[in-house]
Amino acid sequence: MRIPYPELVRTLTDILLRRGFDPDRAALCARLFADTTLDGVYSHGVNRFPRFIRMIANGSIDVHAQPRLVASAGVLERWDGQRGPGNLNAHASMARAIEIASRQGIGCVALANTNHWMRGGSYGWQAAGAGFIGICWTNTMPNLPPWGGVVPSLGNNPLVIAVPRLRGHVVLDMAMSQFSYGALESYRLRGEPLPVEGGFDSQGALTRDPRAIEESRRLLPVGYWKGSGLSLVLDMIASMLAGGAATHQIPPDPERETRVSQVFIAFALSPFGDSGGLADSIVDSIRTPDEPHPEGIRYPGQQVLRTRAENLARGVPVNPATWREVQAL
Amino acid sequence: MRIPYPELVRTLTDILLRRGFDPDRAALCARLFADTTLDGVYSHGVNRFPRFIRMIANGSIDVHAQPRLVASAGVLERWDGQRGPGNLNAHASMARAIEIASRQGIGCVALANTNHWMRGGSYGWQAAGAGFIGICWTNTMPNLPPWGGVVPSLGNNPLVIAVPRLRGHVVLDMAMSQFSYGALESYRLRGEPLPVEGGFDSQGALTRDPRAIEESRRLLPVGYWKGSGLSLVLDMIASMLAGGAATHQIPPDPERETRVSQVFIAFALSPFGDSGGLADSIVDSIRTPDEPHPEGIRYPGQQVLRTRAENLARGVPVNPATWREVQAL
Repeated sequence: MRIPYPELVRTLTDILLRRGFDPDRAALCARLFADTTLDGVYSHGVNRFPRFIRMIANGSIDVHAQPRLVASAGVLERWDGQRGPGNLNAHASMARAIEIASRQGIGCVALANTNHWMRGGSYGWQAAGAGFIGICWTNTMPNLPPWGGVVPSLGNNPLVIAVPRLRGHVVLDMAMSQFSYGALESYRLRGEPLPVEGGFDSQGALTRDPRAIEESRRLLPVGYWKGSGLSLVLDMIASMLAGGAATHQIPPDPERETRVSQVFIAFALSPFGDSGGLADSIVDSIRTPDEPHPEGIRYPGQQVLRTRAENLARGVPVNPATWREVQAL
Repeated sequence: MRIPYPELVRTLTDILLRRGFDPDRAALCARLFADTTLDGVYSHGVNRFPRFIRMIANGSIDVHAQPRLVASAGVLERWDGQRGPGNLNAHASMARAIEIASRQGIGCVALANTNHWMRGGSYGWQAAGAGFIGICWTNTMPNLPPWGGVVPSLGNNPLVIAVPRLRGHVVLDMAMSQFSYGALESYRLRGEPLPVEGGFDSQGALTRDPRAIEESRRLLPVGYWKGSGLSLVLDMIASMLAGGAATHQIPPDPERETRVSQVFIAFALSPFGDSGGLADSIVDSIRTPDEPHPEGIRYPGQQVLRTRAENLARGVPVNPATWREVQAL
């Protein structure tokens, strides 16, 4: 079923108000959830909302908590998220990074003790929308075996890199596992193999069978040893700069995954003049004239704009069972 | 054959002096080449030195050119590399980023119009050695097809992330292709298949056959669509911040690959106190007690320290033919 976007925002806002959110914060939190589904990232929008409400109930999320400045060193600031709502904390942190960058070229907020930020790409779109390059990442609970190992000791630590552009911001939003458990489930339910190898089966062989990976819990890091290393350094930087918990210190339970560490960096582009022409020519350059099937080549974020326009016009797709669950909250 | 490290540095230094380098710059440039081979990164050390000398001869590299400050916005600076030696330009840029970060928390140098930096990891080790988190990347000539395409229009744009640690810095140095052409050649010469799929054959099937990929020129981006997107945004940020050339503007010829754009970022850790214990516990955590084969799990840079110690003690391995070529320069 499809829900008109304004109705979706209103419904989520009302629920958050009943959970004790201040009106401004309820509206922003609801919009971040609704925009995620609007943009086609169905795994981290409305479908996550019931869990978000459960984590308020179980004490993981404090609806009133706001980030608090702990220490600063020039353009680098350390904040304590005080276990507030993850998307509000993240939005405030990127806003603060942008504010610093607008005066000092670069701003960085390292945020400890926060909650799942839901769709990381939201904060990339936020930076790019303000005309800034945005880079941010989060650590997560352990859910990914390192290359060479079988026990999930790394996080899938999503990394977001956004570059502003008049003809459509370029927003990369990539986790360090080749597929998420949500993606594996989708392929399994459709009875399809993965398009590329996504993990190991319990015999240790690389496989495209989603069920075999769900059973082994041996997701594959992006680029094998490379993504394994990238996940590790992202966790180190986030927790060390933020003075917060590292992946191995975060409870390995999706219903109680809290105290995560995040980094938000904004880079000002405007002091150096307009580089919009260069941005466009780079994006255009990946479809070279001698490319036989240029229609198969996309830049990160391209699909989002198309999906957003369609869902705004036709309504936001929501699973009927989820919608009933949300309405009963 | 193995050459004692001091003899290797002296030989390279003498050649650079004869090419007109100032003594200090000859010594640093030679050390950066020698250290790369010392550390076991054989593709970008002494083996690249003859090409480096040829690129001085063909005018791509100006031995006297030094980076020049073009513009600054707070902690973000734009420099023109003036086509100087790539490793000296990169070393100076990371040094400048560290200098800014030591006062302002973060420092960033965006460098245009420079040359191949050889081993990117060198500047990660440099930052970590000074006690800073270092992040740097470069664009390259087009050498990697985007996901969905067959024509190489992306660069393999190496990304380096370094985290300082008393028990061994963690230094990730990863290109955006799963394998380099140098790596494909090594597997082919040994008659071995790649350990994982490394590209497409000319029929468009994923393959582990190094020769098939060398023929098709269809290297695989790290993590398929993910590395393809990451390569694109790294190119955008480097060229836009530096005001320099993007991948599609760089000559696709290894002997004339010049005018590349790079970014160097340093983050101060010291203002927030000692996080060394956390760094160690994170690195230790990837070998969990229930891991059946922990000896197979490594952190990025771990192997480098082992190789460095061995090569310092036993001499630096150099291919005899390459060594004769170097001595004749």
